[in-house]
Amino acid sequence: MPRNPAQPLLLTPGPVSVSRTTREAMMVDRPAGDVEFQEDLAFARRYLVSLIGGGESYTAIPLPGSATYANEGVIASLVPPGGKVLLHSNGVYGDRLVEICAHLQVAHSVVRTPPFTPPSAALFEQAIRADPGITHVMLVHCETSTGVLNPLEEVADLCRTHSKGLLVDAVASYGAIPLDAKRLGFQAITLSSNKCMQGVPGVGWAVVQKQALENAKGQCRSLALDLWDHNQHMERTGGFRFTPPTHVVAAFAQACREHAAEGGVEARLARYSRNWKRLIDGMRQMGFVAVVPDNFASPIVATFREPNHPDFSFQALFQGMKRRGFVIFPGRLALANTFRIGCMGDVTEEDIGEALQALSDTMAEMGVTQFGRDEAVLA
Amino acid sequence: MPRNPAQPLLLTPGPVSVSRTTREAMMVDRPAGDVEFQEDLAFARRYLVSLIGGGESYTAIPLPGSATYANEGVIASLVPPGGKVLLHSNGVYGDRLVEICAHLQVAHSVVRTPPFTPPSAALFEQAIRADPGITHVMLVHCETSTGVLNPLEEVADLCRTHSKGLLVDAVASYGAIPLDAKRLGFQAITLSSNKCMQGVPGVGWAVVQKQALENAKGQCRSLALDLWDHNQHMERTGGFRFTPPTHVVAAFAQACREHAAEGGVEARLARYSRNWKRLIDGMRQMGFVAVVPDNFASPIVATFREPNHPDFSFQALFQGMKRRGFVIFPGRLALANTFRIGCMGDVTEEDIGEALQALSDTMAEMGVTQFGRDEAVLA
Repeated sequence: MPRNPAQPLLLTPGPVSVSRTTREAMMVDRPAGDVEFQEDLAFARRYLVSLIGGGESYTAIPLPGSATYANEGVIASLVPPGGKVLLHSNGVYGDRLVEICAHLQVAHSVVRTPPFTPPSAALFEQAIRADPGITHVMLVHCETSTGVLNPLEEVADLCRTHSKGLLVDAVASYGAIPLDAKRLGFQAITLSSNKCMQGVPGVGWAVVQKQALENAKGQCRSLALDLWDHNQHMERTGGFRFTPPTHVVAAFAQACREHAAEGGVEARLARYSRNWKRLIDGMRQMGFVAVVPDNFASPIVATFREPNHPDFSFQALFQGMKRRGFVIFPGRLALANTFRIGCMGDVTEEDIGEALQALSDTMAEMGVTQFGRDEAVLA
Repeated sequence: MPRNPAQPLLLTPGPVSVSRTTREAMMVDRPAGDVEFQEDLAFARRYLVSLIGGGESYTAIPLPGSATYANEGVIASLVPPGGKVLLHSNGVYGDRLVEICAHLQVAHSVVRTPPFTPPSAALFEQAIRADPGITHVMLVHCETSTGVLNPLEEVADLCRTHSKGLLVDAVASYGAIPLDAKRLGFQAITLSSNKCMQGVPGVGWAVVQKQALENAKGQCRSLALDLWDHNQHMERTGGFRFTPPTHVVAAFAQACREHAAEGGVEARLARYSRNWKRLIDGMRQMGFVAVVPDNFASPIVATFREPNHPDFSFQALFQGMKRRGFVIFPGRLALANTFRIGCMGDVTEEDIGEALQALSDTMAEMGVTQFGRDEAVLA
């Protein structure tokens, strides 16, 4: 059955497609003070804490906007005056943490590593030992710009050994990759309402250790992003401090119910992994080369090298896919001649199969059928 | 025809009800980089500038989150280091600007006046003359917590005379009360995607004088709320700096189209004014007393005194209205024994007529029918 290009399937690093029922939760205008709305909010907050086994030690704080707001809120709220953050970057989202610290005038140092492989834990250990001023380490768990999974467990161990506060950007992994608060001991972890949680975009979340939050009282130099303040208001009233995006929050509660119904993190990881395997296998059969080595790749998004063929153009591939009802994504500028296909969202293995067929048809239309693995490797 | 309590009409200061077609614009998942999405965004930005006659001198910048983010973004971005803001408060939203400046550690002084009447311009003039350190004045145009309209034109004249930068919180007036950029000369004005614009909540907007914005380059100590940075990115790429709430933005573009189709600011003001008149007249006929004098009231929301009757309770009134498909709003804590009914949103005079009937029925159910104007005045 041909897809409707007016309702395309998003195979991107985000926004990703959500279920029809999640979108339909937005068809009611609800008052923010109403009991039904506040029940949805309370449920979503509890559910997010339960996903990391946070028990009574963590609290989930929604920050309307995007996950970048949540990352900024975490740094601005939890790093005390005189604190210093060790950052790592091997992509766009690592770089963004650097930008946030620079804007906030929060002291920071940066470990930079190449984009397609994770860093060794030894690099972090060196950096921590070299600078006793470091109070916190912030790590992007899954770098959305490539799909590389960074070594969260090893960095968590280092933070425990050296008594550093750990902050985690899990925007592209929360909900689909197991994250154990007791094992990892992070002070805060951030996520998006969209991505692996499959709500519509519009709310960033920070799940924060209550003790770390209490220590942060009065510390944030922003009202809008003051996590302590949002949390105390929510605990006291059951509602948001400022007018919330009621429709987005309703969709998120529905998305959490569907996450649970699917079988939680384990089931979602299994589905995304099937999507990713089908995608990688199918693309390799056509002659494409995946940029990230399989053992470092997450089943979130895959990055492929463009075939080195005179008739290939990403724009033509993008448009051909779009006409067939699929949206794919360019590579980042710094990673020239690559493109990305996402495996997240309300997407099944069958959808990936159809997308592969659409991709094959588009390549044929473009006249790019004869490119072998070797040729692509040379690209 | 009885209303469906599961899809109630929101007669509140916000979130307010939007049209079915506006909600339906959220039923598609769209990629943020797509041409259709970027056309919607460009249209909404142009439309907002056109509503104030901003021509080529202003730029409209969406800040996902809420209007509070937009207010914080304006202060954090436009008030330079060493600057000082004169604030005014006669309600919750004036107080919020004070909180924002306190968090940002932006120097400020505050003129406070009683809640139910607007301040005189002379108070502002005194404050401006008394402190040459003041660089900016920020005024809440319509104080949502009461519905009082503050003297924007007079304050704008003072700012012009004394060469102060004017910042306006028009969150409860933009789209329904004429605002002339040339006449008022503000550096920035903020609004909500909801309220009088009738999109769903989830994006605050700042419409900013390009010259003031250019002067603000590099000044903001937040990445998430840096208006200069958001604007340059949007001008350069046609898209958002960070993952946008795509569904909320689509609904906003639809809401702008419907605003234009209704006849723009003039038509919306006329409809809200009819709503307000019908409401005030009907409530007075029942014996209720409006708290704000008619000549200072805006047709956005009306505040009423609770009747001084032993069987009256706001909770019972709220629940009775809710069962009948209408949501009304309590007064603010500081304004004890009042409640509010909104006139904004996708609401007609006929809806108000039905709400009055529902209110009358609820009062009868409560056994509160015998309260006269005098008794209420004494409350």
